[in-house]
Amino acid sequence: MSNNPKKQVQLSHGGGGKEMNALIHKLFFKAFDNEILSSEEDAAALNLNGPTAFTTDSFTVAPLFFSGGNIGKLAVAGTVNDLAMMAAKPEYLSCSFIIEEGFAIDDLKTIVESMASELAKSGAKVVCGDTKVVPRGCADGIFINTSGVGEIQKQGISVKNIQPGDAIIVSRDIGRHGATILMAREGLTLDSELTSDCATLWPMVESLLNADIPVHAMRDATRGGLAAVLNEWANASDVGITVQESQLPIADEVKGLCELYGFEAFDLANEGTFIIALPKEHAEQALNLIQAHEDGKNAAIVGEVTEAHNGKVILKTPWGSSRYIDLPQGELLPRIC
Amino acid sequence: MSNNPKKQVQLSHGGGGKEMNALIHKLFFKAFDNEILSSEEDAAALNLNGPTAFTTDSFTVAPLFFSGGNIGKLAVAGTVNDLAMMAAKPEYLSCSFIIEEGFAIDDLKTIVESMASELAKSGAKVVCGDTKVVPRGCADGIFINTSGVGEIQKQGISVKNIQPGDAIIVSRDIGRHGATILMAREGLTLDSELTSDCATLWPMVESLLNADIPVHAMRDATRGGLAAVLNEWANASDVGITVQESQLPIADEVKGLCELYGFEAFDLANEGTFIIALPKEHAEQALNLIQAHEDGKNAAIVGEVTEAHNGKVILKTPWGSSRYIDLPQGELLPRIC
Repeated sequence: MSNNPKKQVQLSHGGGGKEMNALIHKLFFKAFDNEILSSEEDAAALNLNGPTAFTTDSFTVAPLFFSGGNIGKLAVAGTVNDLAMMAAKPEYLSCSFIIEEGFAIDDLKTIVESMASELAKSGAKVVCGDTKVVPRGCADGIFINTSGVGEIQKQGISVKNIQPGDAIIVSRDIGRHGATILMAREGLTLDSELTSDCATLWPMVESLLNADIPVHAMRDATRGGLAAVLNEWANASDVGITVQESQLPIADEVKGLCELYGFEAFDLANEGTFIIALPKEHAEQALNLIQAHEDGKNAAIVGEVTEAHNGKVILKTPWGSSRYIDLPQGELLPRIC
Repeated sequence: MSNNPKKQVQLSHGGGGKEMNALIHKLFFKAFDNEILSSEEDAAALNLNGPTAFTTDSFTVAPLFFSGGNIGKLAVAGTVNDLAMMAAKPEYLSCSFIIEEGFAIDDLKTIVESMASELAKSGAKVVCGDTKVVPRGCADGIFINTSGVGEIQKQGISVKNIQPGDAIIVSRDIGRHGATILMAREGLTLDSELTSDCATLWPMVESLLNADIPVHAMRDATRGGLAAVLNEWANASDVGITVQESQLPIADEVKGLCELYGFEAFDLANEGTFIIALPKEHAEQALNLIQAHEDGKNAAIVGEVTEAHNGKVILKTPWGSSRYIDLPQGELLPRIC
């Protein structure tokens, strides 16, 4: 952090007076430039018609900057992805900062600019916001909340809609975000190119919607990883899910870290990886559509939905044995997102 | 805080696994009980038609519990009021918690239950949420973000819509929230009944809308107080605003604290006090409608909008002198909301 108070966020930047006005205009309005935001009313005035998705997420990731992203990119991608998973076009985001006194203005600028470039990937706009500054020691750097609304393009996609016989597709190799944060946290350098998967998923989802793929369920595998999503699905739809271990795409660096720490890649968080359940006969077409995107080139069909073992997720090993994948317990990595 | 770990929030409560599921179901779903929330999709599915207001606020108030409210009541009233100020009926809220490891579950329960009772005052529902837990020392107890959406009942109310000749009404005595927090922060007891004005403003706003009062601008005077709102208005509408000091309703306890600390009541934050600008001929009717509500019984016409002195707010003293009220500078009280 800079020692020059002019280059640091001050308590007065959150006070509702002159300094806050200056910060908002010079930094936020400039980066997020749009008419709704700059109207400066108490709330943004939108025009929405019909089924609309609404979601929220607070981001507390540590470290704030990591290989492949930072808290700002994550805060946009995370909320945009929650909308995308409801087949909703990401349209309007709110953005609320809790900043620790003394936080470097340059870092804030970098974070806000990352948010602006990530917004461009889906076309969503930040239309309202809030800034709070808390005294030194009352927060750890910066926390960001984003909430989002967007028009639902296709209804009926739901965790409760999964059918026996459905195929399960994962959009890329799993566990990258969790492994990247772990590496950063432990100060590991490894001779590796490991980066977080942190990304906006809307372009891939839009391809699936445009091709009228009859997706039954769709969810991004964030905290709790693939294991949490599949367990939720098995429960909510009262079905069994079988996963072929040999089909799970996992990068070598992630495998290595998992061996070192005794983790399973399917328990690790992702921030740009989604899972879909859909009728088997549409699986190849969906796979091709996902693989056509750079972020989806490692996508794979990893399992299927069964009538047996309902409520359970079963992992079949390449040696013919099988075991349950449980909902993760305890806390692998605090402040992963 | 309790020393029994079972009675404290643990890092695992934010991990996306079993413990988080239990917390969400036993505490949040129970208090905020509604079908949209309990559908547990990635985002809430709403049906919105036409002009919709969207707003966000993060709450970091210290202390968390204060005379007349707590951070939970504040988090609901704050966002509901931002919607109300756009003449939007508060309908759907998101709710996102950042909780410090070790936070007492009993306190969390009290906060969440306060949120539920405050929601009942406008009929708004919490339809989506998020929970993050950060390690001890990384946050100060709990921070809450709420975002909200609601249908705009009447368009055209805007900071840019104020006309010379308009009357300015304030809905109750000013400065109570700021004074209450100051008193708590300084450990003052005074022999006083001073409580925060923290409250949901929708019932009063609804009365004005139902009576078709032609409100030009409406805003709640939170951080920066009456001074910040009037300065914003004078700027945005390019008008002058004259306030009669003798007409400003201020409780004796607030006056006393202001004298003691050298503050001005019009710079202090409010959390259940709003200001309207409207054609003079409708001012008496509006005043009567506001005064019919318990929270509005001290409402008063405090000033008028002028063509002269545009961009400026002028305070006329009872002795005939006058001075400018500026946009507050610096930080009077950090973590006021």
